[in-house]
Amino acid sequence: MKSNQLETKCILSVTLNIIGLLIAVIFIAKKGGIPYILRQLQTTPAKTSTQPWVDIYYQHRQSLFEGITTEISSPIIFLGDSLTDSCEWNEILNHPQIVNRGIMGDTTDGVLERLKPILASQPRQIFLMIGINDLARKKDFSGILFNYQQILATIQQQSPQTEVYIKSVLPVNNTLFEKGPSNEMIRNLNTQLQRLSKNYSYSYIDLHSKLVDENQQLDERYTLDGLHLNGTAYLIWKAAIENYVKRDGKGLDKG
Amino acid sequence: MKSNQLETKCILSVTLNIIGLLIAVIFIAKKGGIPYILRQLQTTPAKTSTQPWVDIYYQHRQSLFEGITTEISSPIIFLGDSLTDSCEWNEILNHPQIVNRGIMGDTTDGVLERLKPILASQPRQIFLMIGINDLARKKDFSGILFNYQQILATIQQQSPQTEVYIKSVLPVNNTLFEKGPSNEMIRNLNTQLQRLSKNYSYSYIDLHSKLVDENQQLDERYTLDGLHLNGTAYLIWKAAIENYVKRDGKGLDKG
Repeated sequence: MKSNQLETKCILSVTLNIIGLLIAVIFIAKKGGIPYILRQLQTTPAKTSTQPWVDIYYQHRQSLFEGITTEISSPIIFLGDSLTDSCEWNEILNHPQIVNRGIMGDTTDGVLERLKPILASQPRQIFLMIGINDLARKKDFSGILFNYQQILATIQQQSPQTEVYIKSVLPVNNTLFEKGPSNEMIRNLNTQLQRLSKNYSYSYIDLHSKLVDENQQLDERYTLDGLHLNGTAYLIWKAAIENYVKRDGKGLDKG
Repeated sequence: MKSNQLETKCILSVTLNIIGLLIAVIFIAKKGGIPYILRQLQTTPAKTSTQPWVDIYYQHRQSLFEGITTEISSPIIFLGDSLTDSCEWNEILNHPQIVNRGIMGDTTDGVLERLKPILASQPRQIFLMIGINDLARKKDFSGILFNYQQILATIQQQSPQTEVYIKSVLPVNNTLFEKGPSNEMIRNLNTQLQRLSKNYSYSYIDLHSKLVDENQQLDERYTLDGLHLNGTAYLIWKAAIENYVKRDGKGLDKG
């Protein structure tokens, strides 16, 4: 009887072992097999840079912008985040005076902070799109608008002849980018930006309406991740702004 | 005696169970405890993009390059990976014919694959830097060199008048980027690239020696992560190549 009880416990224990082993094998196989184990065994080095990748990118790119003493006179500046950064504006608009001052991951705080060297070049025009990363990081609405006011007031003060074009914040696709900000918030922000542009006598350009689908989401034809844009979207963006871009005195007036 | 044997097996089995349980607890604790389990249990929504960020960036950017029908005639093309992508070459060299065809994360395979539309524009010059991501992903040496040969042969065949400048692969800093490729491998690759350039009568530009410290590592003054570059490094890069960049018939000959 005692032996029988022991046997039962033993069978139970062995069964648990087999189940445990099976779970481990399945887990490791799902993660990529032996190479996964080898990766897990590697110790992370102490000195290796632990800053997030995007922060390092930001600092490197800012350092580039500080290092370039642009020889382009009366530049036309495209200012913003990854959406601005990822395009070749001088090429797509075939315009040698256009310079790219987009940095992946940027926010209204970042733009405000790096405005000084940009204004020192006394740009002829600034095309600005910023705010989606503020919303993604849940910065409160009044904080975003306060930063915008600061940005516009600084431009007006330090480079009064510069024409500023505030572009609408673009929609996201919440199916592809589930953790992204709501499109309702984006639309609310755009309403405020439109108002703000008027207050400062700057122009507002609506790109938002050109990229939404029937559900007011960023159309899936233009994006793979619900936030960033493919070439088709950039051609629409180009078409929406090209008449505002000045060309040797032949550009259209704003408005 | 039989009962004793059974007992021994039973103890062994229970011990194994306990060890297994301990390993599981330690693993889960290292991964962040209960929240890790909850994350693992969440089913990934079917439609949310699960592609790595860098792959999506790659596809978006490639789509941009396919979408731009460049109006710049006889363009000067900067072709490569993130190191090329992150700089504003037309601006830093003050040259309206320069176009950027860098894509973050690119490899010799990628360059080979996207060569066709680049050559269709019959570029005047191509400045090429590629290979560090091949090494980082442990692509074997002969595979990298084979791709390089394919790239150069394709250019020679499809755009014979294009001047090609093969830039050395840059050093990394293995203190900041411990998991990066070894600088010995990078130097070996560069020796081969120099040889290869001669075979195809193209030029080789050594940037490597201009960015190393006394230990043959990427100098810490030029990088935060041991791989990517700040503005100071780009100004050195600029100085090293600017005499090769053609300007309306006034450019230097190669060599």
